[in-house]
Amino acid sequence: MKLITLLLIAVAMVAGVIASAAERHGHAHQEGTPIFVTKVPDGYRDWKLVSVAHEEGELNDIRAILGNDIAIRAYREGKLPFPDGAIIARLAWSHDASVENNKAFGRAQSFVAGVAKNGIQFMVKDSKKYASTGGWGFAHFNENDRTPADTEVLKKCFPCHQAIKDRDLVFTRYSP
Amino acid sequence: MKLITLLLIAVAMVAGVIASAAERHGHAHQEGTPIFVTKVPDGYRDWKLVSVAHEEGELNDIRAILGNDIAIRAYREGKLPFPDGAIIARLAWSHDASVENNKAFGRAQSFVAGVAKNGIQFMVKDSKKYASTGGWGFAHFNENDRTPADTEVLKKCFPCHQAIKDRDLVFTRYSP
Repeated sequence: MKLITLLLIAVAMVAGVIASAAERHGHAHQEGTPIFVTKVPDGYRDWKLVSVAHEEGELNDIRAILGNDIAIRAYREGKLPFPDGAIIARLAWSHDASVENNKAFGRAQSFVAGVAKNGIQFMVKDSKKYASTGGWGFAHFNENDRTPADTEVLKKCFPCHQAIKDRDLVFTRYSP
Repeated sequence: MKLITLLLIAVAMVAGVIASAAERHGHAHQEGTPIFVTKVPDGYRDWKLVSVAHEEGELNDIRAILGNDIAIRAYREGKLPFPDGAIIARLAWSHDASVENNKAFGRAQSFVAGVAKNGIQFMVKDSKKYASTGGWGFAHFNENDRTPADTEVLKKCFPCHQAIKDRDLVFTRYSP
């Protein structure tokens, strides 16, 4: 019985060490790397327009940037930093020549939005939750099945957005 | 007194002929030429996004097409023709290379919306009022002072939109 007791104590100690290490690792993970948004924000397709853009090169898309009411209000009032609760969405579609429009215009000049591509991206403002990434939670979802992108992809958002510090990390300006 | 009576009768007759002619002219005008929208629809900048587009050539713009709730519902439900009350707005801005974005992407590929240009256009559905132009009232306002375009400009809308009869004269498709 004494041997069994000693063994149990030893097992308990080992378990304790493992649990403690796991906890430290989890804590370090939470502090050291950004937390990303993993759920597609509700109703984003009904949000108001912030602006539009066009990317050539590999992206080769035409895009719309939408904002929820908190984001749009901040944009219109020129309020910086964006308040908590602001969410900005980036939708993108293939940049397709429009045969139909070109015919109407009488010349090749018209490009329209084709199929959704390059994912659906969001920036969610929560200055506490996302303190380690400038108060913004970054998100990228597949445009078809809405699965979130890998952490490795999301890690690239913040370093790039940091270039726009004077506009609270937001690239897109509001188009009246 | 008799002379005065005769004169009054004569004046009344002449007035009657003029009034009748004016009425006929007005009627003919109403039947023969389209009626255009002369007032900017309220709150259009808050409407939901239909899609985006890019025009090269002389227009050289990037644009957003918005719809009021009636238009968006019809679009999403695939309801054609659009019901009365539907309004579609077309906003456009200069298609500007973004030095800021290109720096972030590490290559020249990014274009953003600059200043408003090429007017703000609307199609207002009222199958009775605009019966002579396919049930749509066309409008074009200056992007700065919101003055309506000349009738000569507006007369060009309908003939061109007639090319898209199978989608109730609406060029832009909805982008999910």
